[in-house]
Amino acid sequence: MNQKAKPVHAPMSQFQTNGEQLLVNGHPLNLLQYQAGQTPFYAYDRSVIHQKVEALKHYMPDELKLHYAIKANPMAAVVNYMASLVDGLDVASGNELRVALNTGMDGHLISFAGPGKQRRELEMAVASQTTVNVESLNELKLLRDISDQIGIRARVAIRVNPDFELRGSGMKMGGGSQQFGIDAELVPQALTLISDYGLHYRGLHIFTGSQNLNPDAVISTHKGIFELADRLQESAKSELESLNIGGGLGIPYFPGEKTIELAPIGEHLSDVMTHFSKTHTKTEIAMELGRFLVGDSGIYVSKVIDIKESRGSKFAIIDGGLHHHLAASGNFGQVIRKNYPVAVGNKMHQEATESVQVVGPLCTPLDLLANKYELPALEIGDLIVIYQSGAYGFSASPRDFLSHPHPVEILV
Amino acid sequence: MNQKAKPVHAPMSQFQTNGEQLLVNGHPLNLLQYQAGQTPFYAYDRSVIHQKVEALKHYMPDELKLHYAIKANPMAAVVNYMASLVDGLDVASGNELRVALNTGMDGHLISFAGPGKQRRELEMAVASQTTVNVESLNELKLLRDISDQIGIRARVAIRVNPDFELRGSGMKMGGGSQQFGIDAELVPQALTLISDYGLHYRGLHIFTGSQNLNPDAVISTHKGIFELADRLQESAKSELESLNIGGGLGIPYFPGEKTIELAPIGEHLSDVMTHFSKTHTKTEIAMELGRFLVGDSGIYVSKVIDIKESRGSKFAIIDGGLHHHLAASGNFGQVIRKNYPVAVGNKMHQEATESVQVVGPLCTPLDLLANKYELPALEIGDLIVIYQSGAYGFSASPRDFLSHPHPVEILV
Repeated sequence: MNQKAKPVHAPMSQFQTNGEQLLVNGHPLNLLQYQAGQTPFYAYDRSVIHQKVEALKHYMPDELKLHYAIKANPMAAVVNYMASLVDGLDVASGNELRVALNTGMDGHLISFAGPGKQRRELEMAVASQTTVNVESLNELKLLRDISDQIGIRARVAIRVNPDFELRGSGMKMGGGSQQFGIDAELVPQALTLISDYGLHYRGLHIFTGSQNLNPDAVISTHKGIFELADRLQESAKSELESLNIGGGLGIPYFPGEKTIELAPIGEHLSDVMTHFSKTHTKTEIAMELGRFLVGDSGIYVSKVIDIKESRGSKFAIIDGGLHHHLAASGNFGQVIRKNYPVAVGNKMHQEATESVQVVGPLCTPLDLLANKYELPALEIGDLIVIYQSGAYGFSASPRDFLSHPHPVEILV
Repeated sequence: MNQKAKPVHAPMSQFQTNGEQLLVNGHPLNLLQYQAGQTPFYAYDRSVIHQKVEALKHYMPDELKLHYAIKANPMAAVVNYMASLVDGLDVASGNELRVALNTGMDGHLISFAGPGKQRRELEMAVASQTTVNVESLNELKLLRDISDQIGIRARVAIRVNPDFELRGSGMKMGGGSQQFGIDAELVPQALTLISDYGLHYRGLHIFTGSQNLNPDAVISTHKGIFELADRLQESAKSELESLNIGGGLGIPYFPGEKTIELAPIGEHLSDVMTHFSKTHTKTEIAMELGRFLVGDSGIYVSKVIDIKESRGSKFAIIDGGLHHHLAASGNFGQVIRKNYPVAVGNKMHQEATESVQVVGPLCTPLDLLANKYELPALEIGDLIVIYQSGAYGFSASPRDFLSHPHPVEILV
């Protein structure tokens, strides 16, 4: 290689290669495209998920329960696999609850959060003895009625909107005025209602934000959560059985972002949990993670179906696009469009030699999946891989936009 | 009313009211929610669509053909209704072509545009004698092969990426380097290939942008389109049968935006068409519109299922949200979030007395449908109406995000 040689077109570190092919849990991509039955497809790698869960368990205290938040990736096969690795499942809708129960997991190990739960959804939760993370005082009344109707005491935790914020999170979900949870200062009133209504008080759910890559911010949040839980529990009429401390751990998507360090988070958590357990001897502490567990296990694979030059720019047109992967197009709530990491999955050892616009088949300039991206020389039939696509990809995309065929999903 | 009274909570002018109820083509919303079978639902008003088409025809030259671009709203009932009002249908995928043909419209009256058309889709077009708006030279080769295979001469028009831009359009789709169309300077080469390959040359499709509210910009674009068509046609080996001048007419969404004036556009178009027809005696001129024809006919209706205060802000939680109507949440490619026009469909004559956050049931702060919106005092069960929802609503939303039930669509 001469001095001007471009960097080798490298895979992300969670994936291996064999020759020119990207491997998904040992399966080369050129075969996997046939196994999937079509392009475009999402492929999720069991071994990457497994490693991620193991790494987390390694650094976190043994006593910490690990929950999977289904909303990140609700594919039934993924949820089934996760159910074998974690201690509980968290759901955000009645349909997600159905998927969770279908794994065979006991309702006692499932919790259900979300503003605006429907009566039908709350009935599903009460009947299956799922813990409802209550987000308003009205919801408590509804649960009392449903408990009477079904003859089962609803299991409730209070989702708390804390009086502090998680610094540096990609998405703020606590602090200030919020649609989520019950404001900390209203929790005593909610605790009284739970007692008055004869509901089964399970505990507290304190979640402040997501996609955080800064361990110090997470540590400071954990500190705040345990202090707040201790303070709020003073008004409770029964013991704190469960404390869900949320998740919030992020994964890197864009240049300059790094994998979050788990060691300091685990060390700090161990200390605060030891301290907390002295006064709350029967409390199970759970961390709830979605994106962090599955996000980097997934790739979105589409095929180059046309290549053209237009006034000095090269366009590779693929058979997928923003309708399949809205977040990667940069159009899902992002203020500034940034490229997700991209590779040519059948040319993994070729050097990046040209700057390309990778675009989808939609009649809109929004359908841009890689902007001025340095890739090996492309040909029709090449497989474009978008990494970090295991969470909020398939399910969070407008798949009927322009009525093209949907992608498929495989767990490998 | 005293001097400080807030303005009456008025409907948008295309809809009527009866008492407190918003009317959709004469149907009061309190009944329509039962007719739809559920909330949330999209309702499209036939009379509004009809009036919009008639208004356009009134101002445009009689010789101008009017096409409906299905991508704006592909609901089969809407497309069927539009097929009875317009002269042609334009599709952006094979599945849209199927919907168009299902109306009974002849393939000769349909055209198919979009980068990255699949072989299967091109076969559908050739077999149904639909005009393919070709967007790359590779596509011409594919059409030659398919013509041989099926034994029908493909009907092709060239989608041109012009060498000028539509000023002031909400979305730029022509000029500069583009994934859309064939650069104007490459059109002579494409015309030669069409002739060499023995394809049926239909004409040109010149589309430069969408959602334009400035008549002067549209007029200047029309001028450019006819000049460019005249110039490009010099290289053609056969007559210009068809010229599709695109659409680009916008509708108002946000405060300060006004309905685009059609009279000056029609007058100018009449002049340039008269002039153009002197040298191109057999050319049919078509305008292709999607959003403009259906956008203001549609409302998205959801029900208030919970109301809560959090630290001084009032939140109304509805049974729908961004998963049903991504654009109204401001998260679909918009840089700055703005509120769509919103009303309480069962309190149309009540004054707006409070500022509310209207949020959906999703566990994300992105799920915000109206931010600090002045509305009448809300109660659980009230029907929140989002106007201007007839285009790019249902089909352009990530309906499986968090696995809540989908909305339904009705044409009234």
